[in-house]
Amino acid sequence: MAETSPQSPAKVVDIHTHMYPPSYVQILESRSEIPLVRKFASSPDPRLILLEAEVPSLSGADDASAKPPGRPLTRHYSSLSQKLHFMDTHKIDISVISLANPWLDFLDPSEAGDFAKSVNQEFSDMCAQHPGRLFFFGTLPLTASLPTIEGSIAQLRALPYCRGVILGTSGLGRGLDDPDLLPVLEALAGAGLTAFLHPHYGLPNEVWGPRAAAAAGEYGHVLPLALGFPMETTVAVARMYLAGVFDAVPGLRMVLAHSGGALPFLAGRIESCIVHDGHLAREGRAAPGRRTVWDVLRSQVYLDAVVYSDVGLRAAVEASGGADRLMFGTDHPFFPPLGGDEDGEWESVGLNAEAVGKVLGDGSEAAAGVMGGNAVRVLRLYGE
Amino acid sequence: MAETSPQSPAKVVDIHTHMYPPSYVQILESRSEIPLVRKFASSPDPRLILLEAEVPSLSGADDASAKPPGRPLTRHYSSLSQKLHFMDTHKIDISVISLANPWLDFLDPSEAGDFAKSVNQEFSDMCAQHPGRLFFFGTLPLTASLPTIEGSIAQLRALPYCRGVILGTSGLGRGLDDPDLLPVLEALAGAGLTAFLHPHYGLPNEVWGPRAAAAAGEYGHVLPLALGFPMETTVAVARMYLAGVFDAVPGLRMVLAHSGGALPFLAGRIESCIVHDGHLAREGRAAPGRRTVWDVLRSQVYLDAVVYSDVGLRAAVEASGGADRLMFGTDHPFFPPLGGDEDGEWESVGLNAEAVGKVLGDGSEAAAGVMGGNAVRVLRLYGE
Repeated sequence: MAETSPQSPAKVVDIHTHMYPPSYVQILESRSEIPLVRKFASSPDPRLILLEAEVPSLSGADDASAKPPGRPLTRHYSSLSQKLHFMDTHKIDISVISLANPWLDFLDPSEAGDFAKSVNQEFSDMCAQHPGRLFFFGTLPLTASLPTIEGSIAQLRALPYCRGVILGTSGLGRGLDDPDLLPVLEALAGAGLTAFLHPHYGLPNEVWGPRAAAAAGEYGHVLPLALGFPMETTVAVARMYLAGVFDAVPGLRMVLAHSGGALPFLAGRIESCIVHDGHLAREGRAAPGRRTVWDVLRSQVYLDAVVYSDVGLRAAVEASGGADRLMFGTDHPFFPPLGGDEDGEWESVGLNAEAVGKVLGDGSEAAAGVMGGNAVRVLRLYGE
Repeated sequence: MAETSPQSPAKVVDIHTHMYPPSYVQILESRSEIPLVRKFASSPDPRLILLEAEVPSLSGADDASAKPPGRPLTRHYSSLSQKLHFMDTHKIDISVISLANPWLDFLDPSEAGDFAKSVNQEFSDMCAQHPGRLFFFGTLPLTASLPTIEGSIAQLRALPYCRGVILGTSGLGRGLDDPDLLPVLEALAGAGLTAFLHPHYGLPNEVWGPRAAAAAGEYGHVLPLALGFPMETTVAVARMYLAGVFDAVPGLRMVLAHSGGALPFLAGRIESCIVHDGHLAREGRAAPGRRTVWDVLRSQVYLDAVVYSDVGLRAAVEASGGADRLMFGTDHPFFPPLGGDEDGEWESVGLNAEAVGKVLGDGSEAAAGVMGGNAVRVLRLYGE
């Protein structure tokens, strides 16, 4: 398949699709603390353990009869041919691949810079093997020094298939409203790189209550994944908004994972709380004429369409002022079909594609935009 | 004004409106720990301090030049005539008043029962002064023993203007998914009392980050109120759902504050996480035919219409399967106009009323239902 062009009709693009390249898996295998990859007698595949909430304790889990912690690390996580197979199965023309959480957040500052360089090059090489079908969001060594991070951005700017970076919510360790992060965001904006904001840390375990924390882990992974992830994203963006980051870096462009977490639904409440807050009023920060959360949603922010319902997707479209800021994604290789054929069609993908048709009309121009046209335009997904 | 009847056309009903009766304020005044009411040299009104997140520290706040913590405890909080004035100003025919957070959560078990009895009687007496205009949600002494709580439910059942209870998310101390709470929920269902679920505890302060926690409290109350409150509600309902509480107590009816927190937007993701969760699958808890979150939203749950945007309200209506499960509310006396006339019209009320008209059509039957008809029907707001 040759290069795509802006004129190509009806491309399907997946902007939310992850990979752990083999070198990254090796690092996870070498670790004894979460995040890690470990083999258990009770599981054929090695287990990927990303969240404290996924496992009450690692001890005792080696028992062959015990339920293994985390999730199976299948070939879907690191095999490029498997990614291509998944794309073909779901008629996805272009994927914008990104390293999955927790990216490089856990690396020692002394090694983060070199490792970022190597993983970004690895992603670039994968894209070069399938020109026009693969682009990528790079990864920043955020535990390293500012010059190292800026060096990484310079590297990414020069890599032909890179279109942005995937960004967690920790920033330099104090969140995305940290003034010390502004130079990084400015460098991204200056390089024309979009920041794909993605959750990892969720919420503190205590909010899930004793039944979720019990050894039986009664609710599985549902609460941290279904609620912790989107709430983390929403809090991170709200903190950025309140800190004035979007005004301070007007060139910043962000894609919010999972249709903004819960931002489309809560934007009205955020705005109301701002205009009714005595402290912000005294500081003149709730005055008429300021850029509201809605304004930011309609200028600097894009949303993926990974929300698993027409109710959520319609709210996301309306909060964005129209369908041209929404972009389809799959979250592959997470949420595989259970007990089904992982090489076949995935229900998690179908849920999101169906919502697009239901909200915007099957075959409509707006639906085609969300399924791919918007991503081609916004992320310039055509040949170099 | 006389009794209303089910046939009365186009009543406007406020189902989310709080009061602190004078005896409750006295308790708060007597306390030295949050929640409390305290006078400060820098503020004409006493200050109501409900949340740890509202004030970094109480020490030093007596300085007349310092910004006083919390919010002013105006006459809007405990004056019945002020409530009636507010209703008249906003053309509200009926209010279903409730004690505001944190209710009786902080009381010693030995005094909670008696105090609940007294505050519930106080609410009942207020309603009796304005028959047909006022009903109320009672308060349960949840820190007390089960027999004491059940005694309180028996009292409420006998009070002519009581239509339910306002319920926080702490339950007996371990959340609303606690099996020990089931007898309380069953007693409520048996008594025909609706549970109005309302947040108070928000999320742990650490999620708001260092800038929110700084002495300057840079973001005011915005994050805990705009995000912490709805996220707390969403987590509480999701835990109830996962614990099977709605199936275990099929007669349970709940109204969720703030249009369900973020539940309408996140219901799709919750469902997807359930059907993709290995643990729940192994336990047969994600099988086809089970009652989904959507089913519960369309049978046992009602939402208020306090979401401050048409985007959010439309999602709430769609998640509820139609507009007949939504009920208007004001959240009075919270969110008064800043620097404006508190005896005039409140912008926070107008935002929600306008969203109803925008989503359902000004003057439409569906809009009239949300503005009052649904509440009259669901809560039986007609004379005894």
